[in-house]
Amino acid sequence: MIIKTSPLAPKKLKKLYKIDGVSISSVSCGIKKNFKDDLVLIKFNSQSRIYGVFTNSKTPGAPIIWNKSIIKNGKVSALIINSGNANVFNGKKGEEALKKIIKALSLKLSINEKEIYMASTGVIGEPLDYKKIIGQIPLLIKNLNNTPESWLKAANAIRTTDTFPKLHSEKIKFDKKENFYINGIAKGSGMIAPNMATMLSFIVSNIPLEKNETKKKFEYIVEKTFNSITVDSDTSTSDMVLLILVKNKNRKSLGPLKKKEFFDKLTNLMTNLAHQIVKDGEGASKFIKISVDGAQNYKDAKSLGMSIANSPLFKTAMAGSDSNWGRIIMALGKTGVVIDNSKISIKFGKFFILNTGQSLLLKNLKKINNYLKRKEIEISVIVGKGSGSCSVWTCDLTKNYISINTDYRS
Amino acid sequence: MIIKTSPLAPKKLKKLYKIDGVSISSVSCGIKKNFKDDLVLIKFNSQSRIYGVFTNSKTPGAPIIWNKSIIKNGKVSALIINSGNANVFNGKKGEEALKKIIKALSLKLSINEKEIYMASTGVIGEPLDYKKIIGQIPLLIKNLNNTPESWLKAANAIRTTDTFPKLHSEKIKFDKKENFYINGIAKGSGMIAPNMATMLSFIVSNIPLEKNETKKKFEYIVEKTFNSITVDSDTSTSDMVLLILVKNKNRKSLGPLKKKEFFDKLTNLMTNLAHQIVKDGEGASKFIKISVDGAQNYKDAKSLGMSIANSPLFKTAMAGSDSNWGRIIMALGKTGVVIDNSKISIKFGKFFILNTGQSLLLKNLKKINNYLKRKEIEISVIVGKGSGSCSVWTCDLTKNYISINTDYRS
Repeated sequence: MIIKTSPLAPKKLKKLYKIDGVSISSVSCGIKKNFKDDLVLIKFNSQSRIYGVFTNSKTPGAPIIWNKSIIKNGKVSALIINSGNANVFNGKKGEEALKKIIKALSLKLSINEKEIYMASTGVIGEPLDYKKIIGQIPLLIKNLNNTPESWLKAANAIRTTDTFPKLHSEKIKFDKKENFYINGIAKGSGMIAPNMATMLSFIVSNIPLEKNETKKKFEYIVEKTFNSITVDSDTSTSDMVLLILVKNKNRKSLGPLKKKEFFDKLTNLMTNLAHQIVKDGEGASKFIKISVDGAQNYKDAKSLGMSIANSPLFKTAMAGSDSNWGRIIMALGKTGVVIDNSKISIKFGKFFILNTGQSLLLKNLKKINNYLKRKEIEISVIVGKGSGSCSVWTCDLTKNYISINTDYRS
Repeated sequence: MIIKTSPLAPKKLKKLYKIDGVSISSVSCGIKKNFKDDLVLIKFNSQSRIYGVFTNSKTPGAPIIWNKSIIKNGKVSALIINSGNANVFNGKKGEEALKKIIKALSLKLSINEKEIYMASTGVIGEPLDYKKIIGQIPLLIKNLNNTPESWLKAANAIRTTDTFPKLHSEKIKFDKKENFYINGIAKGSGMIAPNMATMLSFIVSNIPLEKNETKKKFEYIVEKTFNSITVDSDTSTSDMVLLILVKNKNRKSLGPLKKKEFFDKLTNLMTNLAHQIVKDGEGASKFIKISVDGAQNYKDAKSLGMSIANSPLFKTAMAGSDSNWGRIIMALGKTGVVIDNSKISIKFGKFFILNTGQSLLLKNLKKINNYLKRKEIEISVIVGKGSGSCSVWTCDLTKNYISINTDYRS
């Protein structure tokens, strides 16, 4: 089956910045076919700090288990990523393969094993041929460099069946001499059996911030971005988002305004990457934002929003540009969150289709049907007067989703 | 779009029994197009008892709200069912429409309003034209009769986009003079937008049993049958299963063996009807049984089984006859239930594909791939040595599911 680039792919790729203290290389080690790049090394100046959020899956891959075990130290010197094999459900052998790779890298780079992170994405349950990876470590190290192009090369190398590379960057102006930068790459959501939904994102900045002002804020942004998207409700065994703050030689002190600017731009970057993943969702033809307002609290709003975003009936209605709001009502009803039906309002774009329980569909039917033919759709659901609100993002469910996931035989 | 009869439909329809004390009629009242039957009345001898299980949706239809409000009385004299309009999310007007129908029926049949149950299935959020229904009540009453054919006619009249009528019956031999019977009809899972997934089932028996020996047992069987199936994870606003025990003139005392036989046969009947709903699942080409054993408790087993049964990645793999067991591992991992990966075994039919964490796929790959081409597939997952086990049933996810739910425009 030929996979075309998603119709929702960005028209232009953003250029990433050169960040001092970071060097990257990508090579082909033979896990992917046809000599495609499938192995990435990112090296950081010593004592760079790392923050991470990992999948909640109870069948996580070996890299997830390893990274979780070392992240409490908070230090990172290198990150190695392979695509084509997720090293999930390989038991003791999967763990041994990972440890051999970490050890080899530790010796070659003379860095502490506990400062080396790994990410793997691809097939589940197939032994990872660690020798292929170890064999390429000398070349990986030799090729390390720090250019904008090396980021793009890495974003390509971590793809499995993504139809486009995902990257984004932001700049924070500091003074005449120096700027701070944020670079981010991600992969995910373009899948073919027997691959597994794996969402990976790696974000690097040279901003000087301390752990106590970064960790919670980062986790909050992950919740509002990568944890607020869904393609098909299936949770990966390998998801991770890492934020790495590269150590600066001359640490400067940031004022509150610059800190705020950093977190705002980090939010922009993570939102952008998360959206790119949805836009590369399997078979996606439409990018859909769902806002929920007026719930009792954030948890209820998220539960209601995700119920709509995950509903196959809602997603197929969107694929058919069908203003079938009954499916939104159904999705609101199935979560267990208590709602007063007489207070529900629903908007498709700027058009109310339901106003505090009263259907207004016929009034704007033609306009709404035209609106739903667009590639980007916004749906707003108001369920009451509470302060709980959220935004989540999803794509439609099309025949191409089925093609991608059935036509390929393992 | 032309909807063909599901390839999983039963080859032969079972004949239902004549049960004294029950009479049925079906007519067309004009809610459905083309003069199709869309209104059913089932009348019961006075003081028949009723037991019900209803949807947990927080946006339930008016009939659900009404039935729940009267079921504590436990008495039933009549049941009226319309198809083509679910009377959901119509607010006060929906409630008024229902009450007018109940009142009209109460006057015409001289029975207490609180002994009249209603079920509606079809479009959500469109006003129910109660005048069409009330106008046909005289004809409905005139046509009441008690024949096996009238059950089949009713099973057809409650269809919305089901591709076949769903019915089943069981007999309990009592003595030379008398038998007890169970008749059941159901609808559900063949849907076209803007209809909503509605699962209805009505079961009638003349067995003499008391409330305290029936209610809990019935609810238990519902949990193991109708609550153990899924087509697309979307919960209906109108689901209900009703069991009606018709009063016998000469109440006989049943021994424990006969009672056991009744509940065994009731389980058979409800299992059969629940399976028919899955076999008429939208676009279904395969009927899949998933057994989970060795979990800590039933709740964990059910959560794991349903996670597999609802996973679009698993269901598309089945559609493609793809032995991609990684998707089962993924589905087990995403529930939050703690499992020991080294204890997981998976069987496709009689073939182990994973034995206590060790992959055996290559050994039987050809046989397994052939097995997965069948119309009926059994998957067994063992997750440990606990006593929690369950069976759940689902269908595959095919392009026809998408066609059915996108090609139709509201």
